[in-house]
Amino acid sequence: MGRWEPGADSRLREAAMELFLDRGFEQTMVADIAERAGVTARTFFRHFTDKREVLFDGSPDLLERSLAALESAPATTSVLDAVALALDAVAGLIGGDREYSKQRQAVIMANPELQERELIKLAHMSGALAAGLRRRGAEASEAELAAEAGLAVYRVAYAQWVDAAEDGDLRDVIRESMARLRSLTAGATPDQPSTAPDSDTVGTGVLQGVERPS
Amino acid sequence: MGRWEPGADSRLREAAMELFLDRGFEQTMVADIAERAGVTARTFFRHFTDKREVLFDGSPDLLERSLAALESAPATTSVLDAVALALDAVAGLIGGDREYSKQRQAVIMANPELQERELIKLAHMSGALAAGLRRRGAEASEAELAAEAGLAVYRVAYAQWVDAAEDGDLRDVIRESMARLRSLTAGATPDQPSTAPDSDTVGTGVLQGVERPS
Repeated sequence: MGRWEPGADSRLREAAMELFLDRGFEQTMVADIAERAGVTARTFFRHFTDKREVLFDGSPDLLERSLAALESAPATTSVLDAVALALDAVAGLIGGDREYSKQRQAVIMANPELQERELIKLAHMSGALAAGLRRRGAEASEAELAAEAGLAVYRVAYAQWVDAAEDGDLRDVIRESMARLRSLTAGATPDQPSTAPDSDTVGTGVLQGVERPS
Repeated sequence: MGRWEPGADSRLREAAMELFLDRGFEQTMVADIAERAGVTARTFFRHFTDKREVLFDGSPDLLERSLAALESAPATTSVLDAVALALDAVAGLIGGDREYSKQRQAVIMANPELQERELIKLAHMSGALAAGLRRRGAEASEAELAAEAGLAVYRVAYAQWVDAAEDGDLRDVIRESMARLRSLTAGATPDQPSTAPDSDTVGTGVLQGVERPS
């Protein structure tokens, strides 16, 4: 990649995002992206299989790094802490460019097909983390529950981080979200009032955006 | 519904499920379903908008009942307990016929498009529960996290219930799953060994079944 046209990859990414935001994902053609990036459509297809891949080509890497983090945790690490390490790794990969994440999120929220793709991506990650936990010796239901709960923490934190008025560290937001899950589950006894925590960010998670009738 | 042909609705459901399991969802045509049910295709379309709706037409009812349960919880109920009440309501609706749920799950797991539909349905439910919690005064991130965590509990419990060797009460399985989440989050401190609980059921959640590359 980049062997034929240095920097074409990032130029294509930038051009695609601009057009997705301007015209909408569906109305943007590969030819438009290539033209704006100053390359041919053929060059586009050397870098991406289709226009959707511009938004999702980081997924395999995310999955691999998060699994590696989970697998490198000491054997004594609890399942949920192992998941937390995996989420830390995800945050390390994508937390460095909030502007890009904001734009990507805006494009995805505007398109049901992309929302589905994002849901599937996260489901795939949950399945992979659960499998990783099982390989570490966790019982199946426990592994699945920890992975699903971890993804729940991640989705809420990610939406909050992207939507926040000020820049924050995604890793911190995920850790706070995990701490909140712990306090929600610890504090939730019947007839106990729910206390409103101090966060003032209105999150709009990927999951909340799916508007089709079910 | 049922005004023209008494019982056509349930005959169509049964015929559809048999064909979906025999031939696969994609290979089953509406005409085949109608024929096996002994009605016309026109009758099919009086009951369902398409063949997919045979599997998903309970969703609006599920959503409504779970929201009603959440909304009728005392104001002092914690957010997670309110979600637990919503899940109890879901279990009350679908927990009565495990054989049907098993068949439905088998059909869905065999078809990526149906898996997506199921993911979207659950995402929609998570969004609706979060909105319900916000109306009860919960702060946004807290509401989303409780709803997402609840759905995580539900997904794992549902898969476990469907896959179990013996019949069980879905409500109980959900409650156990919620209790397990509490113990996972409570017990998870670094350098503490994860203990394997007593469940021996290998769950295959909807979320674990999505096999497409991301």
